[in-house]
Amino acid sequence: MSSTWGNQLKLSIFGESHGDGIGVVLDGLPSGEEIDQGEILTQMARRAPGQNTLSTARKEKDQPEILSGLFEGHTTGTPLCAMIRNQDTHSKDYSELKIHPRPGHADYTGAIRYNGYNDYRGGGHFSGRLTAPLTFSGAVCRQILKRRGILIAAHLFSVGKVKDIPFDPTKTTEKDLHTLLQAPFPVLNTDAGQAMQQEIEDARQNGDSVGGIIECIAIGLPAGIGSPMFDGIENRLSSILFGVPAVKGIEFGNGFAAASLHGSENNDDFILQGDSVRTETNRHGGILGGITTGMPLLFRAALKPTPSIFQKQKTVDLHEHTETTLTIHGRHDPCIAVRAVPVIESAAATALLDLLLEAYGYEFR
Amino acid sequence: MSSTWGNQLKLSIFGESHGDGIGVVLDGLPSGEEIDQGEILTQMARRAPGQNTLSTARKEKDQPEILSGLFEGHTTGTPLCAMIRNQDTHSKDYSELKIHPRPGHADYTGAIRYNGYNDYRGGGHFSGRLTAPLTFSGAVCRQILKRRGILIAAHLFSVGKVKDIPFDPTKTTEKDLHTLLQAPFPVLNTDAGQAMQQEIEDARQNGDSVGGIIECIAIGLPAGIGSPMFDGIENRLSSILFGVPAVKGIEFGNGFAAASLHGSENNDDFILQGDSVRTETNRHGGILGGITTGMPLLFRAALKPTPSIFQKQKTVDLHEHTETTLTIHGRHDPCIAVRAVPVIESAAATALLDLLLEAYGYEFR
Amino acid sequence: MSSTWGNQLKLSIFGESHGDGIGVVLDGLPSGEEIDQGEILTQMARRAPGQNTLSTARKEKDQPEILSGLFEGHTTGTPLCAMIRNQDTHSKDYSELKIHPRPGHADYTGAIRYNGYNDYRGGGHFSGRLTAPLTFSGAVCRQILKRRGILIAAHLFSVGKVKDIPFDPTKTTEKDLHTLLQAPFPVLNTDAGQAMQQEIEDARQNGDSVGGIIECIAIGLPAGIGSPMFDGIENRLSSILFGVPAVKGIEFGNGFAAASLHGSENNDDFILQGDSVRTETNRHGGILGGITTGMPLLFRAALKPTPSIFQKQKTVDLHEHTETTLTIHGRHDPCIAVRAVPVIESAAATALLDLLLEAYGYEFR
Amino acid sequence: MSSTWGNQLKLSIFGESHGDGIGVVLDGLPSGEEIDQGEILTQMARRAPGQNTLSTARKEKDQPEILSGLFEGHTTGTPLCAMIRNQDTHSKDYSELKIHPRPGHADYTGAIRYNGYNDYRGGGHFSGRLTAPLTFSGAVCRQILKRRGILIAAHLFSVGKVKDIPFDPTKTTEKDLHTLLQAPFPVLNTDAGQAMQQEIEDARQNGDSVGGIIECIAIGLPAGIGSPMFDGIENRLSSILFGVPAVKGIEFGNGFAAASLHGSENNDDFILQGDSVRTETNRHGGILGGITTGMPLLFRAALKPTPSIFQKQKTVDLHEHTETTLTIHGRHDPCIAVRAVPVIESAAATALLDLLLEAYGYEFR
Repeated sequence: MSSTWGNQLKLSIFGESHGDGIGVVLDGLPSGEEIDQGEILTQMARRAPGQNTLSTARKEKDQPEILSGLFEGHTTGTPLCAMIRNQDTHSKDYSELKIHPRPGHADYTGAIRYNGYNDYRGGGHFSGRLTAPLTFSGAVCRQILKRRGILIAAHLFSVGKVKDIPFDPTKTTEKDLHTLLQAPFPVLNTDAGQAMQQEIEDARQNGDSVGGIIECIAIGLPAGIGSPMFDGIENRLSSILFGVPAVKGIEFGNGFAAASLHGSENNDDFILQGDSVRTETNRHGGILGGITTGMPLLFRAALKPTPSIFQKQKTVDLHEHTETTLTIHGRHDPCIAVRAVPVIESAAATALLDLLLEAYGYEFR
Repeated sequence: MSSTWGNQLKLSIFGESHGDGIGVVLDGLPSGEEIDQGEILTQMARRAPGQNTLSTARKEKDQPEILSGLFEGHTTGTPLCAMIRNQDTHSKDYSELKIHPRPGHADYTGAIRYNGYNDYRGGGHFSGRLTAPLTFSGAVCRQILKRRGILIAAHLFSVGKVKDIPFDPTKTTEKDLHTLLQAPFPVLNTDAGQAMQQEIEDARQNGDSVGGIIECIAIGLPAGIGSPMFDGIENRLSSILFGVPAVKGIEFGNGFAAASLHGSENNDDFILQGDSVRTETNRHGGILGGITTGMPLLFRAALKPTPSIFQKQKTVDLHEHTETTLTIHGRHDPCIAVRAVPVIESAAATALLDLLLEAYGYEFR
Repeated sequence: MSSTWGNQLKLSIFGESHGDGIGVVLDGLPSGEEIDQGEILTQMARRAPGQNTLSTARKEKDQPEILSGLFEGHTTGTPLCAMIRNQDTHSKDYSELKIHPRPGHADYTGAIRYNGYNDYRGGGHFSGRLTAPLTFSGAVCRQILKRRGILIAAHLFSVGKVKDIPFDPTKTTEKDLHTLLQAPFPVLNTDAGQAMQQEIEDARQNGDSVGGIIECIAIGLPAGIGSPMFDGIENRLSSILFGVPAVKGIEFGNGFAAASLHGSENNDDFILQGDSVRTETNRHGGILGGITTGMPLLFRAALKPTPSIFQKQKTVDLHEHTETTLTIHGRHDPCIAVRAVPVIESAAATALLDLLLEAYGYEFR
Repeated sequence: MSSTWGNQLKLSIFGESHGDGIGVVLDGLPSGEEIDQGEILTQMARRAPGQNTLSTARKEKDQPEILSGLFEGHTTGTPLCAMIRNQDTHSKDYSELKIHPRPGHADYTGAIRYNGYNDYRGGGHFSGRLTAPLTFSGAVCRQILKRRGILIAAHLFSVGKVKDIPFDPTKTTEKDLHTLLQAPFPVLNTDAGQAMQQEIEDARQNGDSVGGIIECIAIGLPAGIGSPMFDGIENRLSSILFGVPAVKGIEFGNGFAAASLHGSENNDDFILQGDSVRTETNRHGGILGGITTGMPLLFRAALKPTPSIFQKQKTVDLHEHTETTLTIHGRHDPCIAVRAVPVIESAAATALLDLLLEAYGYEFR
């Protein structure tokens, strides 16, 4: 196993950064779902590189070709495969990395894990490029979820030391999310967005990079989804989210902040809102006991700064077995968190659809 | 599915807080492993309630009875089942909770998920008591890991606002961990431990509770364990760790702190240490690309404050469909993080053994 | 993995023939299902040994104790564990078998697989005794299926050279199955039953044993259950059925006989029966493309003769590494197929409930 | 789930008969395995249609394009994806089948299962064409197995009433298998082969079809592979083999014949052969207790006659809800068993590699 994920909906991602193609098989999608391919391209474009100076100079059309599972515009219910050709590859840039592993990258662990046979070019299967098929998966799943009233969106909660305003955990509306999803830069506060872009540009000019936190929300989820102890929402979301390169932490609701609070500060009182049981606050992030409460689902993912920086770093020569230094060339995002926003949403959309299929079955309408 | 976890080593946990018994089946253990039952009891005792005023007044011997899988003191390789009888149960304490769900608890979501048929007494299957079989699992797995040079230990990184000193991420030794594992209170700095105990006692006297962060380290792991994208160390550890009640966040290495750093501050240079490739620092927490680097594995889990507090709280009456108030009685830890320390270690031990069995097979010696 | 089975409903069987106890965890049962424990005992009794001279002299009450997952007479939806104590064990009978593996048994392969640490007493985890927890599982699942109009029953299709009449593949009714389930000997034709019992008695008196074929039917299944290519009904049923010791073949509908037919002889024409699409004949056994057609599901399992016979056999001495002979003592059924009838039904019931939960979700009513 | 299979080696098959492409992702292959692409084409050619009048007139080059997982001629250890374009498709032939389901086919169950959204053209995902990616998988896996001394081959055990001679269950050699694998028609006895071809030609001329049995052997497997109760060799092989369209029965060793024997006739005595423990006969088919004995692994799969026959058959009109008749046109093999021979071998090769990876880990050399 490894790049296969899911229970009722199985995701199988393949490809290497500089190989012939990358893609994904989605096995277990409900049948009869109309798929808007324009909407898929919109989502792919949100992740695609080459849009501005904030991202890698690599340009990829990221045009997925659907090989199966779609017939007359609707899902067949049998496996849907989408393939994306790799085109703008500069493999010569990477030849040094086979023997001089980049600090903070998987060059070294990949070589150990695969006995030196891993495709090291551009990070191979470890590359951020593998998030394109995951974004495709999310672009399909979120259409299916939307038809059932479930909307997912994310923003940059922080970049380096600059913070956006957080989601309103109880009152965020569909309209808020539509606005966010169409924003040119994924923040709730445009001033914060400007400052973040400056932070990133500063890092880029220093040949450096910077990390960020992505906050994601899902509204419209019914209560009662998820199963203790190990198929709860947190377990399942984290098991897919840590598959997004650079993610080093996940928290739900108050998350780490809850650890410094008292119970009286962290509990959410139950109230009635018309006929519905709700909570007055939403420090629990929409999950209690691994199960949705019906409140917005809220989580944050911490992404480390891009490890590919252009400053001289220490490394080892794996052939000569000596210490040496390395200066990385090539094309790299100074802040991977920006393009990871739709990827995090997509991982969440895929996981939530899987969880709903478990709850309601493949007859799920 | 739900309380079943694992690939090569399958864990199946059963039981409810006030039912006849709780327990665990471990399917896939390597055969021929000598199991020290005294050592199991030592680990169970670290988690057991009733030790001091800091934990619930419930007293349970937590004496696991091994029903299968052990023959002449060694694992047979076929499923090992351990059962623990519930004894000191006060079920009458809980009858109100069926209709008045406790804020921050799974009473409400459990009722929705299971259509009102969940055993609500003492939290049923959601109870912290279900961590006893998980601790048993860890107590078995860590013996098998230790025989292969792998040691796991955890401490209270923080309780409320009080912080312990962190693990040394590069130089922590076996001896350090043995000392920690035998400490009466699981901290590296005894002064911090005293302050934490005071923090907990203060919360208890206010009828309140307090959260905490647990930091866990594993030393002796070989490089090259774990598989991208979704069977990496982070994915697998988080998928079991979020099964521990009250865990709301997980981070590896620098974790969330990495998000505010530059790449030049977060990367770890590769160096040689004798024949071994190591990193000079260990901000990556022993994992790159989902795969172990051979450096200590380091992660933190955030535990929310115990939701059962003794102050009056708002809730709803699920029968009458009205808003009401609730005052919880019964026996509850004011800081669940304390007893969760061996549980977090145990979840990690179980997950790491599973990952090693994938790497080396069931012939693994 | 190994003794864990299932997707939405996970079965985890534990125990050894002469250990302290055997049992099963059922994780993923729908909540709120009333369970008739008397009915469970009825099913357990159908499988239990010691009823007559046709089965082993070992007497076990096979009284399962439910430790969890049942509350106020209904399933909670969280894991249900049942344990059965081993009582009438004669372990001294088996000590020789550690070094002199019995022909046709798993003594040799168990020793290789588990490096000599397997519990060899009475076959350990390989023992037919492990079908008791599987029967328990079936006894629970068939109550849930029955509530949804699905009935499962099996008969001895053949014992040695003696054949029963087959099920009517299109017209078998609920009443037929109720009659069969209450029959003292599980056949459709009592004369055939008499002849089978004579065949078994003859084998027993010769210190020999005899094989048999079990035919199983399930009526009331909706059309549209199962998923190609690898989660079809045949795949899933066979993957659990081969877990029943002694099963060496499985066939659906016409099965092996279909291989000698022409398409014109094996196809089933579609017809209308009122509003329903049916087939005129049922050579397909209720499954096309891995998916139920709504016709009765029909399969046969071939069970080899009990390998434990009382005639002198050749074997090897694993310590001395010499050839030797062996005369088996102990208590063994001369025809394992008789008591396997409810076991095969139970495996089918468990698998069908799992498949229905996938189709309809855990909200399945 | 559905077209995803495996534990350590995950197979994910996608595609429909008349869609844009079909293919497979193999996730979990050991790294560093040299792959001979000519050998892959040889295996694909054995399954490919259009070779002679015995098979469908559809001609497909079946040229797989490897998109990932192969670098400098060796497996990378990350997912290997192969895609095959569909080319010679006559979709107009099939338009009638959406409303007039073919007897013996999955047209009807597919429509129910997928609510009418299945791609019905050429059987869609149910088509025998989907065995091309499975054959690709086998072509890769058997190269890896061969390097470890394991060889797999199959022959037509019977076609209609014509029987080949069976494999010698104890003495079959590598050379025997090489000869068989290169035979123009896959039989051990060429006279039987001639008679079979006549049987098939007769059926074809009658607008009919005929079934067959495939017998498969694997030699060189070590003892001790497989895990009771549900991950035994029989469970795992059958769970993939029933994914091959038209398979309706599986048996191991003596299989169904064992059911009419006495234990004294079916047991295999253990003997010594030099240093090795062997059995004198091999009625157990190389498996005891679900675990390999080190004797040749032997099983048979029964394939029903191709349901697409050219005689007039009764069916229903799913739109009008009336009974009607159907005459099938299009291109169909009169005996699907012939081309299924390499497919059965391939399913077995895939399953055995998965089982070996579980036993020895991904470090498996």
